[in-house]
Amino acid sequence: HIDTQRLLDSLQTLGQFGALPGGGVNRLALTDADQAARDWTVAQMRALDMQVQVDAIGNVIATYAGSEDLPPVMMGSHIDTVRTGGLYDGNLGVMAGLEVVRTLRQAGVRTRRPLAVAFFTNEEGARFQPDMLGSLVYVGGLPLEQALQTRAVDGPLLGEELIRIGYDGAAQVGQPAVDSYFELHIEQGPVLDQAGIQIGVVEGVQGIYWTRLTFSGKSNHAGTTPMHLRRDAGMAAMRTAAFVHDLVQRMGGGQLATVGSLELEPNLVNVIAAEASMTVDLRNTDAQVLAAARAQLHAYAMQCATAHGVQLQTQVLADFAPVAFDAEMIASIERHAKQAGLSTLRLPSGAGHDAQMLARICPAAMIFVPSVDGVSHNVHEYTPPADLGRGAQVLLQAVLERANR
Amino acid sequence: HIDTQRLLDSLQTLGQFGALPGGGVNRLALTDADQAARDWTVAQMRALDMQVQVDAIGNVIATYAGSEDLPPVMMGSHIDTVRTGGLYDGNLGVMAGLEVVRTLRQAGVRTRRPLAVAFFTNEEGARFQPDMLGSLVYVGGLPLEQALQTRAVDGPLLGEELIRIGYDGAAQVGQPAVDSYFELHIEQGPVLDQAGIQIGVVEGVQGIYWTRLTFSGKSNHAGTTPMHLRRDAGMAAMRTAAFVHDLVQRMGGGQLATVGSLELEPNLVNVIAAEASMTVDLRNTDAQVLAAARAQLHAYAMQCATAHGVQLQTQVLADFAPVAFDAEMIASIERHAKQAGLSTLRLPSGAGHDAQMLARICPAAMIFVPSVDGVSHNVHEYTPPADLGRGAQVLLQAVLERANR
Ligand SMILES: NC(=O)NCCC(=O)O
Ligand SMILES: NC(=O)NCCC(=O)O
Repeated sequence: HIDTQRLLDSLQTLGQFGALPGGGVNRLALTDADQAARDWTVAQMRALDMQVQVDAIGNVIATYAGSEDLPPVMMGSHIDTVRTGGLYDGNLGVMAGLEVVRTLRQAGVRTRRPLAVAFFTNEEGARFQPDMLGSLVYVGGLPLEQALQTRAVDGPLLGEELIRIGYDGAAQVGQPAVDSYFELHIEQGPVLDQAGIQIGVVEGVQGIYWTRLTFSGKSNHAGTTPMHLRRDAGMAAMRTAAFVHDLVQRMGGGQLATVGSLELEPNLVNVIAAEASMTVDLRNTDAQVLAAARAQLHAYAMQCATAHGVQLQTQVLADFAPVAFDAEMIASIERHAKQAGLSTLRLPSGAGHDAQMLARICPAAMIFVPSVDGVSHNVHEYTPPADLGRGAQVLLQAVLERANR
Repeated sequence: HIDTQRLLDSLQTLGQFGALPGGGVNRLALTDADQAARDWTVAQMRALDMQVQVDAIGNVIATYAGSEDLPPVMMGSHIDTVRTGGLYDGNLGVMAGLEVVRTLRQAGVRTRRPLAVAFFTNEEGARFQPDMLGSLVYVGGLPLEQALQTRAVDGPLLGEELIRIGYDGAAQVGQPAVDSYFELHIEQGPVLDQAGIQIGVVEGVQGIYWTRLTFSGKSNHAGTTPMHLRRDAGMAAMRTAAFVHDLVQRMGGGQLATVGSLELEPNLVNVIAAEASMTVDLRNTDAQVLAAARAQLHAYAMQCATAHGVQLQTQVLADFAPVAFDAEMIASIERHAKQAGLSTLRLPSGAGHDAQMLARICPAAMIFVPSVDGVSHNVHEYTPPADLGRGAQVLLQAVLERANR
């Protein structure tokens, strides 16, 4: 049985790296705080007699030997956070994986297949785009060389930052090949919490499309330039933001749109903005509906740019199709939860996860535990300890079954 | 007669302080670049045997003795620029004032009243708000103590920055009392250039209202938070921006609105913004129409905040009523321009100017020269040398007349 208190302690210790003064964590990928959290986690892995390898994109994979030399059953997630993150997002999947190994080791249980616990580089996509970058490279979805050239929002290249923090590992990406992948995660949304359900059985991940729209107009004086002579890049961007928000509300059916980032140049009270750069995050479980939203966004942005006399440049930052998880693993998770007397609900994941990348190369599935009030990417992200323990226990059971097959 | 080449040389030398690599000037108030430009300008003043005084808000006033000890006729403007400014905005009024003194001195002319050339602190309002801060304090419109406590957009207090660059002068603000104030300036708008007019005879300055709207919502995950459960501060801000833009276009009649600055927190692609802070710049020559636009802006912002479930905080950054200049000085400028065979047009100023503050304590007026394509607050701001010379010549004539009365 999982030791919930021990799991909680490890989450709290990990949360001290990059801790924000008022609570919460700021541990953007490959920063000093991330380096410290990595070092601590690697030490935990070594203390469990796991064999640790770091690959060329900084993914860390620790293996706990099985009775046979087969591809391991992998558990994992990420330990980077957004700038205003919480204790649980990503961290739970990694700490629970280690807790599973710790529990089996103490009980003297050795599985047939080896177990692996991984944390992947830059899952959040907050410092480098796209998100799930480390797992995307691991599954061969993005060439290593290109990934190393990705520029951080604060300037440096990903490859430089890996070297700086000492996580430009020697292992080849994609190694070892794995039998299967399990990821325990907080839901990060309100569904389980509102329905009072203990375990979310995740059927798949919705499609994610991220784009950066950069409008270039002409800076001019706010007091002397008649409205009809302006080429206001900021206004084109803000109108496009309002449009996409209206659009998805008209569309309904779970289509989401977020303009989380917008920057104006020169960003002064009495100067018409010469440049406006914004991101749009679009999501849907239905690839076709997502494609329609995307097309309408780009059509409007172009039309709006023309109407404002500004130029538009478009860059795709992420483009991931909806993913369905492995039916057998889904069923196994559900069965173990029910056998333990827990309430369950099948649901899609709103957030992107490393599991959606791993699903390209092996059977994969996810377990969700509730997020209080659905709050995530926020310092007030919270999941009660009992829910954390239940999730880790279901993970343990499902992994045991799979590793002993 | 004004030496146009010499005037141009002084503008170009001044433009080297804070010069931007591709052309243009970045010389925000009380920065190192501003300090260097101030030092150079003061040296120019001293070289003309002018008596230089720096007051407690950093305004610099240089006096050239008259034959009688009367209140001086003042010329002036400012030498701070926006972050992406040009060579002429403000600088022309100061350099032309010095060129007038230089010309009279070389010709051995001594006026009855003394002449003064001033540059006022932080006219642009780009680094500290409100704009025209130095002249506002000079005329008693803002208490010195409060002005010194104004915080720069990049952090430090105005009083600290004055001390840092050595311009916390000993002179009392508002001294010396002046007879009258003339300001030569580029139009910064397209009216004169489009009409092919050489001299703008400025009748007054339109009203200016600046406000900062800060929306506070809740950061949450872009992929998991249903649209109807969001408290998206960024969307409330962007919708308010689109509203005020639409509003003034419906209003017509020269009502202007600019959202030049907007910042999101945490400003990440997949995080709903917890906070959005934006500025709105509203202008009109008609105080009543301006008040109506302002009321509608605030009503909508409040309603939009409520609709998005976010809080709204409002801060007034500047609030200046429309100003009418002195009829006699306006007539004198017009007469001298026409006598010199120049085409003239009476017009209001769209931009705020120190003259609008000086008008509170003495007769004041302004002369405009054309801005090519109406471009200003932009590195491509341009006025042909011949226009600069014509404006300085009209300044010389009008000042001579006034100073010899
Ligand atoms: N789980 C998670 O927050 N992933 C970050 C990528 C996303 O925005 O969905
Ligand atoms: N002349 C000028 O650009 N003044 C700055 C204040 C304003 O925004 O009008």
